[in-house]
Amino acid sequence: MTLPKTAITPTRIEDFPEWYQQVVRAADLAENSDVRGCMVIKPWGYGVWENIQRGLDALLKETGHRNAYFPLFIPLSYLEREASHVEGFAKECAVVTHHRLELDANGKMRPAPSAELTEPLVVRPTSETIIGATFSKWVQSYRDLPILINQWANVVRWEMRPRLFLRTTEFLWQEGHTVHETRQEAIDETFQMLGIYRKFVREHLALPVYHGEKSESERFPGAVNTFTIEATVQDRKAVQAGTSHFLGQNFAQASNIKYVSRAGTQEFAWTTSWGASSRLVGTLVMTHADDDGLVLPPRIAPSQVVILPIIQKADHRQPVLEAADNLRRQIRDLRFGNEPITVEVDQRELGGGVKSWEWIKRGIPIRIELGPRDLAQGTIALSRRDQPVKEKVFKAVPEVLAELPEILSGIQNNLFARAEAFRNRHTVRIDSKADFYDFFTAKNPERPEIHGGFALAHWSGDPAVEEQLKNDLKVTIRCIPFDEEVKDETPGKCVISGAPSARRVLFAKAY
Amino acid sequence: MTLPKTAITPTRIEDFPEWYQQVVRAADLAENSDVRGCMVIKPWGYGVWENIQRGLDALLKETGHRNAYFPLFIPLSYLEREASHVEGFAKECAVVTHHRLELDANGKMRPAPSAELTEPLVVRPTSETIIGATFSKWVQSYRDLPILINQWANVVRWEMRPRLFLRTTEFLWQEGHTVHETRQEAIDETFQMLGIYRKFVREHLALPVYHGEKSESERFPGAVNTFTIEATVQDRKAVQAGTSHFLGQNFAQASNIKYVSRAGTQEFAWTTSWGASSRLVGTLVMTHADDDGLVLPPRIAPSQVVILPIIQKADHRQPVLEAADNLRRQIRDLRFGNEPITVEVDQRELGGGVKSWEWIKRGIPIRIELGPRDLAQGTIALSRRDQPVKEKVFKAVPEVLAELPEILSGIQNNLFARAEAFRNRHTVRIDSKADFYDFFTAKNPERPEIHGGFALAHWSGDPAVEEQLKNDLKVTIRCIPFDEEVKDETPGKCVISGAPSARRVLFAKAY
Repeated sequence: MTLPKTAITPTRIEDFPEWYQQVVRAADLAENSDVRGCMVIKPWGYGVWENIQRGLDALLKETGHRNAYFPLFIPLSYLEREASHVEGFAKECAVVTHHRLELDANGKMRPAPSAELTEPLVVRPTSETIIGATFSKWVQSYRDLPILINQWANVVRWEMRPRLFLRTTEFLWQEGHTVHETRQEAIDETFQMLGIYRKFVREHLALPVYHGEKSESERFPGAVNTFTIEATVQDRKAVQAGTSHFLGQNFAQASNIKYVSRAGTQEFAWTTSWGASSRLVGTLVMTHADDDGLVLPPRIAPSQVVILPIIQKADHRQPVLEAADNLRRQIRDLRFGNEPITVEVDQRELGGGVKSWEWIKRGIPIRIELGPRDLAQGTIALSRRDQPVKEKVFKAVPEVLAELPEILSGIQNNLFARAEAFRNRHTVRIDSKADFYDFFTAKNPERPEIHGGFALAHWSGDPAVEEQLKNDLKVTIRCIPFDEEVKDETPGKCVISGAPSARRVLFAKAY
Repeated sequence: MTLPKTAITPTRIEDFPEWYQQVVRAADLAENSDVRGCMVIKPWGYGVWENIQRGLDALLKETGHRNAYFPLFIPLSYLEREASHVEGFAKECAVVTHHRLELDANGKMRPAPSAELTEPLVVRPTSETIIGATFSKWVQSYRDLPILINQWANVVRWEMRPRLFLRTTEFLWQEGHTVHETRQEAIDETFQMLGIYRKFVREHLALPVYHGEKSESERFPGAVNTFTIEATVQDRKAVQAGTSHFLGQNFAQASNIKYVSRAGTQEFAWTTSWGASSRLVGTLVMTHADDDGLVLPPRIAPSQVVILPIIQKADHRQPVLEAADNLRRQIRDLRFGNEPITVEVDQRELGGGVKSWEWIKRGIPIRIELGPRDLAQGTIALSRRDQPVKEKVFKAVPEVLAELPEILSGIQNNLFARAEAFRNRHTVRIDSKADFYDFFTAKNPERPEIHGGFALAHWSGDPAVEEQLKNDLKVTIRCIPFDEEVKDETPGKCVISGAPSARRVLFAKAY
């Protein structure tokens, strides 16, 4: 038996990491740049990011956050103000040491020795310390609180093993930074933001995620508690898709953010920070794409519908293109999820098959073919990206127009349901060390193989177990889950050490 | 006689540079950060920038440009590929030399010597070379052209004498980069973009600008021609508010952007680049603000209307706030310039005067006061920021709702007309060297003084004259203008050297 030919080679089963690269390439999302670890985000990929920005930004503004912008550079001494923070980021910092170039004796450009900075500047890996320095000036009294700020920015964390979108030296993100009068308000904010991330990725990106708290060893450097949303992608690994940190008074002390309380005393404020990044694009690809390329949830697709005019003879050209443009204008007047439906006509003079496959690989939710015969009959052929690529339904134009918003919802919901079923199928309770090791061990070490998933197992809280599992299996605790369907606080014994355990936690391999 | 008290001290006449700093501070637009030359853009200032982004982005997309994202870092050797380009930027480059921090023998963090980069990376001052390297891979054939790309990004040009928004080490901008098959297409694109900038700043920011070509000495490093829009601010200096460059084949040769032509030959492509930045915010302030603070054109204001509830007694609180919120919802349903009118209610428990002055200083176009007496009479008191701050008109609510869009247009047009009249008043024809020097010389060298303006004068094309004027007067040629009202190609003699001159050009001091 020969397998049916697919647009992407290799397939997911054959070689998942390579499949991922090929999908990103075939969908024209991004490519590696000549600068090690940095990527070029191409228009179709950036279009996805723009939709992420737009959707998430609206949720942030609805909840009272406002955007601002802080310096790209952080003086080294600022980073050092929080000991575990600088320790956490030291190994991945890009450091600016000079502010001028000059010609050397051989006529080559070099950093000018006379322009060496007295204090090196670190390209922000995250902005708690530089934003904290500003907040310390903004906050005088409890009346100045809360401060609810968000920043859309690029950040740099030097990466030795880059992977497009998921792990790059430079990436795009939003980072929220808030200051509160009380511990409880800061905790409430931390949870509110975790909830917003969960809602956003579920409703816009069609990503089912587990949410919960990170173990101490996986905490953000300097945080008191780190909370996370964790996606499951198709090789059954986890991707951390957003984090929200309760920072206690750690950064307030480091940056001297103090306020005069209602009682007239000087107090350190309570802060939070939270972020989600362009790795969401990679998570989206790994969750929904198939062996024919990308599959985009309609709410996040740069375009939702493409109209492909079928022109076999020159004298068909004019009427078919006119009909296509008519249809485009009618579709553009429809709405899906409170926004106009986005639609384009692919007028390029290429074969219909070539064009169609390009759009399949780019993951556009709906393709509409329109040829001279359709024109005569008043019908079109509609294909959904969440169904087998060769399937088409023929419909009358008014019917299409009436049903389009519903079809888009259908695709959005279907992608979510599919991903959720997959995630649930690969979340298993494990109660013995042998089963645990077996679950996370590839059966064919000769070649990449999809295996494992999320293991819901007991853990006593001992970081030595985490260390051991990381070394033996590259498995980490993704979170101590809050989700009803997996949360389990029945006491038991650590699946690895046998020590008494208060609850089950979620283990997985992760990107 | 004592001058009337103003909200901003000093006034424009007293000390323009200091007035500018104070307006920026009082309007809560931005502040200096602890990182030399870098600013913090505060929410109200960032709100202006978001509206600039939204408005300009729509115009770029309408004309077929798509957004993408390229690396922050440029390998030094890439910058060197275009000789005049690297020479132009060498003195202001921030250079990354290390990718890790480590503790030294004294327990202090330092750039790790073992993590020194083989090739230094420059933080992008502009992206022609790094984007060109990518374009060279994207372009194979004439069929791949044109490429019409835009990037919203931060850039860094080390600044020794920073000034908020106008000149900062890091700033935000958009940079467009396009590749074309023919010289003419690239020239057309260059002019199209100049036109878009002109239209955008005129219609959104209410900025009248002269547009024209830069002299050779003011060209973008590596460009064949640079075109500019030049604003006139209230101390009569010029601000370059956007530039569009025809790059010829210079960068195509530097980056090896070649295509197979229709005739089957290998050809270098033709490229353009164009940019506008966060200095537009500074230009806006210097053009429209007055001695009571910022004055914002409605189309660019983060909020267009503020409702100020007047509450003198506790039992007024509830009904007044309810009425304010009702009014807010009714206003929000109105539209101005195809967008919902943006409105907020200032519910803070502060004195009415304090609140009102805050909004005056922030430049919100319309203030509406609503108190218990108004409630009884069904009226409100409306103040326009383009009129004296103490003026109010009392109007019935339905009347306000009916007129609001028109009032906003009125403010927008009035600000433009005012700025244009100012600009025209301070554009003068000058025909002698003595008059020229007199025009640009402060009469009281003891203290800052507003003087000069735009001088429309003959110039032969000799760069030595430019050098002399820069040294003597800090005056530069802002452009060889295209505007009908100032363009003058009647031959004459250079105002400085007396050499034969083909046309008049615009001279000014500039930020």
